[in-house]
Amino acid sequence: MKNAIIRTAANVRALTGVECDEAWVVVADGGEPTLYTDFRYIPMAHRVAPKLKVRDIKHFGPDLARLWGGKGASSRKIGFEKAISVAEFEKLKKFLPRAKFEDVTRDLAKRRSVKTPGEIEKMRAAVRLNDEIWRDASRKFKSGMTEREMAGIIRSMMFDRGEGEAFPTIVCVGANAAECHHVPDDTVWNGRDPVLVDMGVKLDGYCSDMTRNLLPRRPSSLYRKVYDLVLKANLAAIAAVKPGITGKALDKVARDVIRKGGFGKCFGHSLGHGVGLEVHEAPNASKKSDWILKPGMFVTIEPGIYLEGNLGVRIEDLVLVTATGCEVLTASGKYSARTEKMV
Amino acid sequence: MKNAIIRTAANVRALTGVECDEAWVVVADGGEPTLYTDFRYIPMAHRVAPKLKVRDIKHFGPDLARLWGGKGASSRKIGFEKAISVAEFEKLKKFLPRAKFEDVTRDLAKRRSVKTPGEIEKMRAAVRLNDEIWRDASRKFKSGMTEREMAGIIRSMMFDRGEGEAFPTIVCVGANAAECHHVPDDTVWNGRDPVLVDMGVKLDGYCSDMTRNLLPRRPSSLYRKVYDLVLKANLAAIAAVKPGITGKALDKVARDVIRKGGFGKCFGHSLGHGVGLEVHEAPNASKKSDWILKPGMFVTIEPGIYLEGNLGVRIEDLVLVTATGCEVLTASGKYSARTEKMV
Repeated sequence: MKNAIIRTAANVRALTGVECDEAWVVVADGGEPTLYTDFRYIPMAHRVAPKLKVRDIKHFGPDLARLWGGKGASSRKIGFEKAISVAEFEKLKKFLPRAKFEDVTRDLAKRRSVKTPGEIEKMRAAVRLNDEIWRDASRKFKSGMTEREMAGIIRSMMFDRGEGEAFPTIVCVGANAAECHHVPDDTVWNGRDPVLVDMGVKLDGYCSDMTRNLLPRRPSSLYRKVYDLVLKANLAAIAAVKPGITGKALDKVARDVIRKGGFGKCFGHSLGHGVGLEVHEAPNASKKSDWILKPGMFVTIEPGIYLEGNLGVRIEDLVLVTATGCEVLTASGKYSARTEKMV
Repeated sequence: MKNAIIRTAANVRALTGVECDEAWVVVADGGEPTLYTDFRYIPMAHRVAPKLKVRDIKHFGPDLARLWGGKGASSRKIGFEKAISVAEFEKLKKFLPRAKFEDVTRDLAKRRSVKTPGEIEKMRAAVRLNDEIWRDASRKFKSGMTEREMAGIIRSMMFDRGEGEAFPTIVCVGANAAECHHVPDDTVWNGRDPVLVDMGVKLDGYCSDMTRNLLPRRPSSLYRKVYDLVLKANLAAIAAVKPGITGKALDKVARDVIRKGGFGKCFGHSLGHGVGLEVHEAPNASKKSDWILKPGMFVTIEPGIYLEGNLGVRIEDLVLVTATGCEVLTASGKYSARTEKMV
């Protein structure tokens, strides 16, 4: 990436170490990045990245014109991200009317998809904290609590011990789990129905992501069947993770298990996605994903089965691709619904 | 708005009643809107808006092509929002290669800026809840707590009693208040220094926004001077709110007070902004704002003075423009630093 103008928060953070929603980063001739932001965030940027060049956003347009507006402007390729808004892109084109803009989103995603050892340590810490919060929060769950209260217990711990939620915490009692992005509401837990929790804490900028299910007191035979099938798909996919496998091949491993079990139509989402500065990033593991797994990549393994008005089960672990296979980072226990023993 | 394709969450909610980040709304021939979203959100959309037409996002492209791709396509004006991403816009252009897209952001903002009686009631409820949370949370603040702990007390109440934070809660101890978007950190409050809190709870989709300052135990003469000047600017601007005044004229009222008091260079942001489904929406009250205030609009009045490394003061109320002036909705007390009495 020789020349580029970057705007999205995760790429700004990846390039500069600074987390800021209101900033642009300029890379010229492959050199050190310059961060542009307004007076509200400049002191924070200096504190977080003392060596980084930070300029007031007032200078952004004039600096761009000076850098790339002169000689050679009409042939200059400037990287940008297609995730910026139409209005923002129009602004860039106004500053640099003759430049050739090219989308570098995938390059940036690729670069971020393989984590450095330092990033891997941060990811481990975020996953560990998430496991601890799940342990401590779920012990406080009591019959009579609402989904909202249970989500509140988790959320408070995430803000107290980390940097808050990586995404809105999902808590589903009983049949609410059939909606896979259910927003916690006033549904009361009777202490017997299953509870699905999808949660991730952010720590030092890095995200975690995990789904666990409190098993029902007396699971129906349908629930047992569905749960153990999801677990089987989860374990099969984990066993299949290794360098060289594509996202779609991995997705197929889990999907085949669920299809053969007779619930193929009830697994409506992808198997998983990368995690890092963003809770959803490359590589994804979906039906169409061409991403090839490499050591140092993280991917969630989260098959699910959803039966509207009845039940929903999803089991999600975060794994790190290693030289020979993968390491499951998520340490929270998983149980068989049949034997109720840990697997 | 005859024909339009809408994407941003607040406009989707305004048009359909459904809150969803992953949806498009299509309005054709000025008729009833249709919501397009994926299977994850369809049950929720049906529940929230039983009469709304909801279609699976799979049909989005084909439906657009059928609606507007045929006869008359090359002259058809289709409204869109410039806040959508370049990638999303390219998708729309692919579905409708011959349509003329025109930005309707300002039309939508204008429409949303004047609230209906039903919306005004929801805004009142959000502001009232915010006042209650400030009262209950600030009573729990104790010497020895960190900014992060104080923010956590507020945040938990927001999630328990409402729909969470309208924006990340700001808590600044002492000189940290000079950074006007300070992120609560481990700075400990000694029970004597001033504490600035900027907070807003979301309730039934609508936002509130308020800033208050716990006065220092023994304010320095500089703090008193700055604080009472900000208060004077806040009160002067509130007195000036009435139908017909522009955003920039209103901003000038507060700015003049601060300039005459000798701190003109230390008020680096705008006087205020509209609030509704979003915490920042039209009308804004800045140096350049041409927005004209009308009955039914909401605007924050939030002058501030920031002296780096020393202190920061901002006082923010939310007001509703009425036929003859305005009603201050924020009920939390404001005190003079000189007399320590409520104003």
